Amino acid sequence: MNQDYIIADEWSILEKGFDKENVTASESIFSIGNGYMGQRANFEETYSGETFQGSYIGGIYYPDKTRVGWWKNGYPEYFAKVLNAPNWIGIDVKINRRSLDLSQCKVNDFERKLNMKGGVLTRSFTAELSGGEQIKVCVTRFLSLNFNELGVIKYDITPLNFDGEIEYIPYIDAGIMNEDANYDEFFWEILRFEEEKNEAYILSKTLKTEFHVCTGMKIEFLLNDYFIELPYETHKEDKKIAFNYKTDVKKGDTFSICKYGGYTQSMNHPKEELIFALEKLLQKASIIGFYDLLQKQKDAWKKIWETADVVIDGDIKAQQAIRFNIFHLNQTYLGEDSRLNIGPKGFTGEKYGGSTYWDTEAYCIPFYMSTKDKNVAKNLLLYRYHQLDKAIENAEKLGFKNGAALYPMVTMNGEECHNEWEITFEEIHRNGAMIYAIYNYVNYTGDYSYIPQYGMEVMIAVSRFWHQRATFSKAKDQYVILGVTGPNEYENNINNNFYTNYLAKWTIDYTLKNLEILKEDYPDDFERIIQKTHLNQLELDEWNKVSNGLYFPYSDEYEVYLQQDNFLDKELISTDKLPASERPINQKWSWDRILRSVYIKQADVLQGVYFFENHFKQKSIERHFNFYEPFTVHESSLSPCVHSILAAKINKMNKAYEMYLRTSRLDLDDYNHEVHEGLHITSMAGTWLSIVQGFGGMRNFNDKLSFAPQIPKEWKSYSFKINYRGRTLKVFKDHKGCKFTNESDKPINIFIHGKDFKVAPKTMIEL
Amino acid sequence: MNQDYIIADEWSILEKGFDKENVTASESIFSIGNGYMGQRANFEETYSGETFQGSYIGGIYYPDKTRVGWWKNGYPEYFAKVLNAPNWIGIDVKINRRSLDLSQCKVNDFERKLNMKGGVLTRSFTAELSGGEQIKVCVTRFLSLNFNELGVIKYDITPLNFDGEIEYIPYIDAGIMNEDANYDEFFWEILRFEEEKNEAYILSKTLKTEFHVCTGMKIEFLLNDYFIELPYETHKEDKKIAFNYKTDVKKGDTFSICKYGGYTQSMNHPKEELIFALEKLLQKASIIGFYDLLQKQKDAWKKIWETADVVIDGDIKAQQAIRFNIFHLNQTYLGEDSRLNIGPKGFTGEKYGGSTYWDTEAYCIPFYMSTKDKNVAKNLLLYRYHQLDKAIENAEKLGFKNGAALYPMVTMNGEECHNEWEITFEEIHRNGAMIYAIYNYVNYTGDYSYIPQYGMEVMIAVSRFWHQRATFSKAKDQYVILGVTGPNEYENNINNNFYTNYLAKWTIDYTLKNLEILKEDYPDDFERIIQKTHLNQLELDEWNKVSNGLYFPYSDEYEVYLQQDNFLDKELISTDKLPASERPINQKWSWDRILRSVYIKQADVLQGVYFFENHFKQKSIERHFNFYEPFTVHESSLSPCVHSILAAKINKMNKAYEMYLRTSRLDLDDYNHEVHEGLHITSMAGTWLSIVQGFGGMRNFNDKLSFAPQIPKEWKSYSFKINYRGRTLKVFKDHKGCKFTNESDKPINIFIHGKDFKVAPKTMIEL
Repeated sequence: MNQDYIIADEWSILEKGFDKENVTASESIFSIGNGYMGQRANFEETYSGETFQGSYIGGIYYPDKTRVGWWKNGYPEYFAKVLNAPNWIGIDVKINRRSLDLSQCKVNDFERKLNMKGGVLTRSFTAELSGGEQIKVCVTRFLSLNFNELGVIKYDITPLNFDGEIEYIPYIDAGIMNEDANYDEFFWEILRFEEEKNEAYILSKTLKTEFHVCTGMKIEFLLNDYFIELPYETHKEDKKIAFNYKTDVKKGDTFSICKYGGYTQSMNHPKEELIFALEKLLQKASIIGFYDLLQKQKDAWKKIWETADVVIDGDIKAQQAIRFNIFHLNQTYLGEDSRLNIGPKGFTGEKYGGSTYWDTEAYCIPFYMSTKDKNVAKNLLLYRYHQLDKAIENAEKLGFKNGAALYPMVTMNGEECHNEWEITFEEIHRNGAMIYAIYNYVNYTGDYSYIPQYGMEVMIAVSRFWHQRATFSKAKDQYVILGVTGPNEYENNINNNFYTNYLAKWTIDYTLKNLEILKEDYPDDFERIIQKTHLNQLELDEWNKVSNGLYFPYSDEYEVYLQQDNFLDKELISTDKLPASERPINQKWSWDRILRSVYIKQADVLQGVYFFENHFKQKSIERHFNFYEPFTVHESSLSPCVHSILAAKINKMNKAYEMYLRTSRLDLDDYNHEVHEGLHITSMAGTWLSIVQGFGGMRNFNDKLSFAPQIPKEWKSYSFKINYRGRTLKVFKDHKGCKFTNESDKPINIFIHGKDFKVAPKTMIEL
Repeated sequence: MNQDYIIADEWSILEKGFDKENVTASESIFSIGNGYMGQRANFEETYSGETFQGSYIGGIYYPDKTRVGWWKNGYPEYFAKVLNAPNWIGIDVKINRRSLDLSQCKVNDFERKLNMKGGVLTRSFTAELSGGEQIKVCVTRFLSLNFNELGVIKYDITPLNFDGEIEYIPYIDAGIMNEDANYDEFFWEILRFEEEKNEAYILSKTLKTEFHVCTGMKIEFLLNDYFIELPYETHKEDKKIAFNYKTDVKKGDTFSICKYGGYTQSMNHPKEELIFALEKLLQKASIIGFYDLLQKQKDAWKKIWETADVVIDGDIKAQQAIRFNIFHLNQTYLGEDSRLNIGPKGFTGEKYGGSTYWDTEAYCIPFYMSTKDKNVAKNLLLYRYHQLDKAIENAEKLGFKNGAALYPMVTMNGEECHNEWEITFEEIHRNGAMIYAIYNYVNYTGDYSYIPQYGMEVMIAVSRFWHQRATFSKAKDQYVILGVTGPNEYENNINNNFYTNYLAKWTIDYTLKNLEILKEDYPDDFERIIQKTHLNQLELDEWNKVSNGLYFPYSDEYEVYLQQDNFLDKELISTDKLPASERPINQKWSWDRILRSVYIKQADVLQGVYFFENHFKQKSIERHFNFYEPFTVHESSLSPCVHSILAAKINKMNKAYEMYLRTSRLDLDDYNHEVHEGLHITSMAGTWLSIVQGFGGMRNFNDKLSFAPQIPKEWKSYSFKINYRGRTLKVFKDHKGCKFTNESDKPINIFIHGKDFKVAPKTMIEL
């Protein structure tokens, strides 16, 4: 059974009624973030029930000592993980000296709401404490888009049936441990406390990596919305500082605390100025004040939604879901900082260490390219460019030479963090995604200058890797790539994975082609790159040999490329024969059984068909889809979107819609029974792709922007906008037809169902 | 560089001169054991240098919580490991109140000797302490073969240049941790201390498994070999009890402590009687006395050597080595207890958890069959028979049904302990070794009754496994076995491993054949087994289909069976092209590189050729050997012996001798740079096989015992004895010819170089 307690709403995520069972799930789902930092939707006050407390700062990581059962030569010694950061949200509450703890009192009219339009989390409820006191509580919290180091809380309490003492004990606590610490170690060192009137700061640093972080709070009070001043006591512990305020409040009066908090850190400030910088920020916030900050927050989100929004009419759950996905992507990454990237769980959990995967290149970049300025996607590309040296080092560790690069499977700072040989060493297709992302970026934005400036160095290093990784098989009289794991991780250490081989050949060809272009059109860059990389014609000839002689497994019987050598030796039993009681197979079957089965975790050959759709005829796409789809169990969140897009392409709209549903409400309905661990952030980009590339049929091959809009019969209409080469294009589709509106002041050329259209500035065409 | 500090000697392992660098290696090499318990050759007195303290009791294990990086469904939660047991050997020594610690004083004339003929470890040295005192020390220690719970130490000190105070502080210490504990936990609970005059006992139990162990000591003193009584103080700590004795000793006098110690434990005694039983034993030991116990020890070892010895003339290092191997095998396992087995490191270290591997069936059983009574090998078979239910459970966990069994890769009590998917779930060939061992036993001993009584149930369960594990490949129109790891662990998750497939088919055929025999000749057993296993004709027909339709990868070009599908896609670069600087590849190369290389860790196809040599023509054996040998890096200790045997078979005596050298002095010369972790006990059986089956050419196919003796040119002669069906046959070979002596009083039929001979009782034939 999937969960169904989230109430459908166009613009909000809503939970009504308090159920302890849902607390950890809601902590994930209602997470907030501003691209710079993020946090789970933990309660401010003490909660003694099951909870997973988490607050994270982008880029602040710790290299945790690797834990393995059996060490393999080449494993990295550390797994860099985003650190659970000091808590600045904590506000303990006492009513007549009794702690407010939702797990210990009667809770009524509980409502939690994530206002996606404005980026604000609210919570309200009435509670009856063991002494009979009834209170009404409303809490508003947001992480500011305008001041990205700032978070704001307003916490209101109204006594309903008594006059009595209310205590607020706001605190900051740097004694926070990672849930997923391999050896239960504490990763922080506390350096300094600082306290001023109603303000407190803790300066701490991460062990080993020595990131310095200042955590702070500034406190204000309101009684019925008028500022009041209160005396307080300070309680200082080892790693925590708390202020204790109390006052008597009359029945019906609303006593509120405003807490301005957040972090400054050494990636953005000199270490010695961290406390001062945060003091200044919190003072500024206090001067602006809660209500104005809230308004600014809403304005900032409005701007994001202007291009990013997808409107679906006639299906409120689908509408909620797509906004939920877009909202969380924007909470996770806003693209202003090329040192940051998008972890699979964003700021909503710790699984996968919060690090960067090929998800970014394969799924996220297209989303950001279309919904934001091109610099955002460029920053994501630069992230990898800046890590090229580490990728070369990584390849050297595995025996490659001469500047060949292998980008890590999982990384925070460019070093490999993962330690399963079948993935770390063998899931090398990721290296191709780096180049595909460059190609995709150049293709979509038209910004060719990225290749001479940055991209070519990466392309050469990756081509070198493919050249060295391929070996010659006398038996086949062709080059082969042995011992890999494809995107379908339910196969390990296989030979000639079609997707991997295809990317390898394509990378080499694309690099060679662009080297020619650079030689001709960018001779200075060409010269600089040749000097730097020591590339020579002999090497290029060798690349060509591999590219021309590379083997691809193919079935004459089925007329499809095979996922890998010997794929057809498997028992070809389709998923409809798989009993529900045995799914998901990754929870029900032992690993060997999964491996020798035909079942596919996520799109693999089809991922290749999707990336290079323009290389395949429609009939061939159909054959590949029809062959592989029946064996695919979609136990990766990254799978349904690709299937949805291809299904739409081959006019299987029912299948496309079915796959869309799986991706869009994956977390809201908790399909995989793991939402308490955090959200599937990177796959959210896939949901957006399902609509825009799937239903909308958007493609951008060969410098052409094309569409082929279709609509699921369950919807009345949908619309989305894209930013394409400085133009904003709005696409609307209903059952009667479609409309394309050029909202910019420059004309735009598009292809619709294969036909060429020029849409003039500020005009609409209708079909 | 291999180590070379062990001095060659026919009957001893000798170390002269004290070198701190060699301490942990010597602790392994000089280990002592009596089949029931064993210990590393740690010093009795405090040693503050690098040391690995270890004492182990057969069968006393703890299920340590599994440590993995990434959990795979089906992994066992625990890894049972032999426990590092309480220390009973400790004797701290003070000279004029200064501790004797070899790492802190001048040491001269250090000699350590493992007398293999008599099973006694001695150590002698002179030491000069920081105060200038010079002493001579001699220590004798052994673990009794006559009383298997007993260990004995005599420790002599003679002041050389002073009169002064000597203190002996013997202790027992139950506060011992495993070196290889996954989470640094303490695995014991201390239950009770008991103390009498000069005697102390600690009763402890293992956590979880609740084995109860009593550790004790009884102390006596001698001055110039006359008993003396001494007063003492008792020091009791949490987990340790020590007695402090001191006396003044004159220059030239020898002051000795005798310490009788050891363990009683709950596998062999009621828990409540453990202390009493040990008290009784130590008192008995004290009555017999050190010198008589020592003589009994030598007598007992003499009996072992009577059949087990291999005499090599003309190569003292080879002589020392083969005795070292035979000696340690006998120290590890004597075959009296079917609850015990042979861990890869015996009692000499903790790596591999001290548990049972397929090494026992493949390598150790032939050794024990030939050098001991058949009941010893039978006990090893019964060990698996008794664990059949667990093997069925283990298979169920992996999705098999209907009584199919998968024996664990590593086990202590029948449950799987290993947690690498490519081994735990996929190295299933081990299941075939269980059946091969039954076949081998019946073949060699002629004791067919084992099959109706025990063996058939195991055979049926394993045949069921193979039947279910094979799947039908439409592409090949044959049955295939996908996703396995063969004995060559440098390939993972491969398809159709020749060795595995061959064992699978053979197991089914052998089971079917013996079912026919049982039906005819053992109808009652047959009926009982059919009832118990619910076997029916339909199932047998299915087995037959798999057996008849099973696929074997074969190369027409090379006319050899291929190790696995697509083996010839690899780059076939022989090991002579592999630079020395890159070996061993398991230390120099990352795992993926190893996997996609052609290099073979240990005999794989050749292991099959060795097991089923009678199925192959001589020419075919030659082709297989010549094809695979150049790719084999022998980075498993179990590899060279098989190559040595086959090389001798195909008249490549130089290669056979080269391979023999690698196996026989593996630990003495520390080829793999890991002897400090413990010895390679199970591969020691392979050394014996290299001589007896390799040079001696002994085979026992088809109820015939045959020989084809050859001799390495480096040796003058060699001889060995075997016990065959109640007869003792001595085989002697020199460069002139060979002699076969029937030492028993029954005639024996043998084939020598293919010719039939009948050797009458107590006679010799010479060729």
